[in-house]
Amino acid sequence: MRQAGRYLPEYRAVREKVDFLTLCKTPELAATVTVQPVEIIGVDAAIVFSDILVLPEAMGLTLFVEEGRGGPRFGEPIRSRPAIDRLVLPDPATDLRFVMDAVRTSTRELRNRVPLIGFAGSPWTLAAYMVEGRGSKDFRHIKGLVYDSPRDAHVLLGKLAQAVGDYLLAQIDAGADAIQIFDTWGGLLGKDEFEEFSLQYISSVVSRLNDRRVPIIVFCKDCGFALESIVASGADVISLDWRTDIGEARSAVGHRVALQGNLDPVLLFANERSIQSGVQRILEKFGFGNGHIFNLGHGILPDTPVANVRAFVEAVKSLSVVYHREPVGVGKSV
Amino acid sequence: MRQAGRYLPEYRAVREKVDFLTLCKTPELAATVTVQPVEIIGVDAAIVFSDILVLPEAMGLTLFVEEGRGGPRFGEPIRSRPAIDRLVLPDPATDLRFVMDAVRTSTRELRNRVPLIGFAGSPWTLAAYMVEGRGSKDFRHIKGLVYDSPRDAHVLLGKLAQAVGDYLLAQIDAGADAIQIFDTWGGLLGKDEFEEFSLQYISSVVSRLNDRRVPIIVFCKDCGFALESIVASGADVISLDWRTDIGEARSAVGHRVALQGNLDPVLLFANERSIQSGVQRILEKFGFGNGHIFNLGHGILPDTPVANVRAFVEAVKSLSVVYHREPVGVGKSV
Repeated sequence: MRQAGRYLPEYRAVREKVDFLTLCKTPELAATVTVQPVEIIGVDAAIVFSDILVLPEAMGLTLFVEEGRGGPRFGEPIRSRPAIDRLVLPDPATDLRFVMDAVRTSTRELRNRVPLIGFAGSPWTLAAYMVEGRGSKDFRHIKGLVYDSPRDAHVLLGKLAQAVGDYLLAQIDAGADAIQIFDTWGGLLGKDEFEEFSLQYISSVVSRLNDRRVPIIVFCKDCGFALESIVASGADVISLDWRTDIGEARSAVGHRVALQGNLDPVLLFANERSIQSGVQRILEKFGFGNGHIFNLGHGILPDTPVANVRAFVEAVKSLSVVYHREPVGVGKSV
Repeated sequence: MRQAGRYLPEYRAVREKVDFLTLCKTPELAATVTVQPVEIIGVDAAIVFSDILVLPEAMGLTLFVEEGRGGPRFGEPIRSRPAIDRLVLPDPATDLRFVMDAVRTSTRELRNRVPLIGFAGSPWTLAAYMVEGRGSKDFRHIKGLVYDSPRDAHVLLGKLAQAVGDYLLAQIDAGADAIQIFDTWGGLLGKDEFEEFSLQYISSVVSRLNDRRVPIIVFCKDCGFALESIVASGADVISLDWRTDIGEARSAVGHRVALQGNLDPVLLFANERSIQSGVQRILEKFGFGNGHIFNLGHGILPDTPVANVRAFVEAVKSLSVVYHREPVGVGKSV
């Protein structure tokens, strides 16, 4: 999950100087905020600071991020087949060089203390943003595309799968030690549609990355109903949202994949004792043995108290010793 | 699901004269909009027009519904144990007489054409609104209550279960032919917390209603992970959101309960052919036999085209004949 963010005063200090997109596109600054949580919070992996929507921007859409005005939006949402056909396949090494430079600079500044995770949105999640033009309550445009013009939807998703694959391969080439694919909107769909329009394209991306031998983490939010199919995608690690019972998930997947997760991020507003018991409950549910990357079950909330985040990380480190034979961390526990 | 609403010009005509809460509290008008969907859309059950938040209002909170300003809100959210203790247990026959009168008037105006469904929010869902004060993105206050002060949460939920039970018994006494309990926010919680803080109290309400021999429908949104426990609540019908696979749900529950659902409401923005195939897919998944109440998987969206809603109802009526041995409808197919 994203670790840098507004809850950190050190992040806010950087953001006072530049807007969000400039931060994403200035490798030195992006690397600075990438490394912050490692030093301030003590997490044992870093995730490169970026945004999933810089890829659609490189494909030809105009991206606006206006502060406090309801999240990012695209100037011209994709609403027709010609608009799909006009999307270009970027060359990530040049067109998204700022991301690759952020990966390289972050890796250097991390000095092998912890691994660095690269990431991208899933083809479906990117398509949802590109077709809606912004976040949505009901996602009627992307669903309309799926229901009324499934062929066009598949053309768009196929193109996105190609672009996402290229983009993640470039991040691995630039030095990412692991990759996470975020399917934030997979849960908009029923199971059959999820498999056809989202998971199929995640699997195709995963299979392109597999021979690079870096761990691949797949996070499909609100998709607990499709755990078995997600395992079949070929991912090394399945990241669980906080609503999925990690004990039941482990029973279901056995040793085929590792599991990541899944503390409710809202628990970080509770008191320290409640945070500790929340951590303990998840460790108990997962049980003994490796194959567990402790994490939140969704992104950290902007005004989470820093002291609580630190208490959370400390609780994980101290309480997990009994359960995990080696220290938690991407790569180590996979 | 709520059937009356802004998508109907006839409803908008009534709403031009009165605000939302006045409509809820004027039995003749509430009955008028209750009956509208039966006559305009051709559905084969009516659901009394009301709002789940009139119950907390009768318990002592001040309810505001300001049009187009982000939904209803309470003047003073419940944030302390004294605030919980101050909540009163209303006598629904007098304190919520406008609802009982709306049930009576609707029953009379329906002239036995179709059954009338009464409803309430689940104790957990009401608690979420009462503690947050309004809808929320992260529900940090109600979760804070659960995480930091679980005993107080149980006191609040116990009181709400009592009030919801009284309220629904009164609706049955007034003539409701079936009851639906809406747990809109059950899916905020992980499975253990859902069972402890939401389902436990739904079950206690259901067991108080059970000897009245009216069908009880339970809708827990985003709780597909807890289907087995929901069946154990004693409900006659489990209402499924659109993300749950109704075929898998039927395999899991067998003949222990009937299932209601579960077309994606956004599909009603698609073209008629897509709507028909969506209906057909769900009928096929459920398979042959009774025990299926066809419905949407969540509430109808405000600007759904009326022609599409009609096409949906017609598709269900014509396509279901092959699958359901008797016409669909509450009471008949249970």
